[in-house]
Amino acid sequence: MPETIDIAVVGATGLVGEALVELLQERDFPVGTLYLLATGESAGKSVAFRGRNLRVGNLSDFDFAKVRLAFLSTTADVAQASAEQAMAAGCSVIDLSGASQGAGGLPVLPAANAELLAQPSLPVRISAPCAPAAEVAEVLAALRNVLKVRQLSVTACLSASVLGREGVQELARQTAELLNARPLEPKLVDRQYAFNMLAQVGAVDEQGYSALERRMARELSALFPALREGLSVTCSLAPVFFGDVLMLSLKTEGPVSLEAVRAALEASEGIEQLEDDYPTVIGDALGQDTLYVGRLRTGLTDSCELNLWIASDNVRKGAALNAVNLAELLIKHYL
Amino acid sequence: MPETIDIAVVGATGLVGEALVELLQERDFPVGTLYLLATGESAGKSVAFRGRNLRVGNLSDFDFAKVRLAFLSTTADVAQASAEQAMAAGCSVIDLSGASQGAGGLPVLPAANAELLAQPSLPVRISAPCAPAAEVAEVLAALRNVLKVRQLSVTACLSASVLGREGVQELARQTAELLNARPLEPKLVDRQYAFNMLAQVGAVDEQGYSALERRMARELSALFPALREGLSVTCSLAPVFFGDVLMLSLKTEGPVSLEAVRAALEASEGIEQLEDDYPTVIGDALGQDTLYVGRLRTGLTDSCELNLWIASDNVRKGAALNAVNLAELLIKHYL
Repeated sequence: MPETIDIAVVGATGLVGEALVELLQERDFPVGTLYLLATGESAGKSVAFRGRNLRVGNLSDFDFAKVRLAFLSTTADVAQASAEQAMAAGCSVIDLSGASQGAGGLPVLPAANAELLAQPSLPVRISAPCAPAAEVAEVLAALRNVLKVRQLSVTACLSASVLGREGVQELARQTAELLNARPLEPKLVDRQYAFNMLAQVGAVDEQGYSALERRMARELSALFPALREGLSVTCSLAPVFFGDVLMLSLKTEGPVSLEAVRAALEASEGIEQLEDDYPTVIGDALGQDTLYVGRLRTGLTDSCELNLWIASDNVRKGAALNAVNLAELLIKHYL
Repeated sequence: MPETIDIAVVGATGLVGEALVELLQERDFPVGTLYLLATGESAGKSVAFRGRNLRVGNLSDFDFAKVRLAFLSTTADVAQASAEQAMAAGCSVIDLSGASQGAGGLPVLPAANAELLAQPSLPVRISAPCAPAAEVAEVLAALRNVLKVRQLSVTACLSASVLGREGVQELARQTAELLNARPLEPKLVDRQYAFNMLAQVGAVDEQGYSALERRMARELSALFPALREGLSVTCSLAPVFFGDVLMLSLKTEGPVSLEAVRAALEASEGIEQLEDDYPTVIGDALGQDTLYVGRLRTGLTDSCELNLWIASDNVRKGAALNAVNLAELLIKHYL
């Protein structure tokens, strides 16, 4: 293992890109030179890292041969092109965009299937799951030895941050317009989002599913093949700035022992459960490296049912931390 | 049928009580004398009805022998006491509080089981379902002939209005405090509710269910006994002022025909479905006498699964209109 490795972060000015840089700094990640990259107007900005201001370079000018690992936190199109360039230059890739699935990218979540990283040939192209899939998967992985899940229904109430920084700004602007009795002018979202629940994130396909729901289903099915036929996923958008809320209803093969479930969650490093109270994003999860679980309960009449609530910082815990953990595994074993 | 009947509204100053009075007026309900009643400080206020200001009387001074029908839109305790007094005085009761269930009150929803009102002996004590149960039941009733539902998972994102007028004020105050960078002082809700999803409405029992979830399950089981063993209910609270959002996932006995589902919803008077867009509370449902359905889709892999989204005005459509419809049925047949 070398002492340090040179790294690129593509999409460094986005919410997740920023969180990636923060985590690399906080965790004393063995970064040699850090290249921050973006497209369009975001190139040229500067971002603080270890006491210095790093200038964000233009992605189109970057030579991936300079680094051994690149985080791709950008749109699927840009990530796809960058992943190809990086791999051709011998640079391994951790792709947060979803673009690498079906293109040779292993979907890997450290808490669920780290063993997939046991023998990759370098460079390797790894796909990190989207935040809500990673959050659900982390809970499922923790419960793997105490429950045999045959059916899982996930209802997600996502936040403005799933639309990126512009989503957060849209909600803030709309809220201020309403509270100041100014005319509402929806821009990024095509209707009133402030104080209103939206039924979907982005457009839906002919079968009625959004790309995010498809991605969640694809990733959860890849991580837990037994769930492939028993998965139901809904992603709605709540008028909340940050964080993911996920309400899960699981049907299991035998009766659920809440005691065993609690013990398994307790033993899981990345999960904190609240027993006498319920967790929320703002009160508990934001800025944390753990995801919060609460409202554990069996079915109303079905003892083979488990219901629970997850609150998580989607940007930090759901996306950036998993990606950094993947990089740590990769470095430990190979780079 | 008499030309008019004298009516009491208990809880006339609450959100639902106000909507009841509005609907009695809008629908040319054959009211003779209308008595508006409340407890505590709310008595003495005045409420407009048919061009006059009616003074809200004190419930404790009221003699139910003066009226033939009373709407009870108040706490369960007050409703229970009022129902007993009213019945003893020969006055029929439509109880919106849930208190009348298990106390001889028939749970009735006009769209689902109006036949229960076929032969009551007067006075009758009728229990109107809570808004989210009524909304789910209306959709299930519309689909009764095209689907055999064996399992239903309901995830509700309710709004501040489920906590009454004080809930709406709490969300408004918290939102303003945050946007003006003043210290947040939670009062009615024990934590930050503005821009935060809360996992439950009120306290939960030893099994982890809130009273509202229990009520929904009880009412849906009473209206659709076949669902009793296959029901899963979660009620969360979104930082939204008004309206109910309900995300349903149904498992059916045969494959779902979306065409048949659409036709059945189309034929249902109280339901409007959106096909190319999704409905929201603010954009569609508020102030309306219909509930809005969207995001109809079969399962990701399971053709015996139907998923859908409901947006409804919980105060008007979910609670008050159903109660007034019950009264209309009662008057038509008996009073």
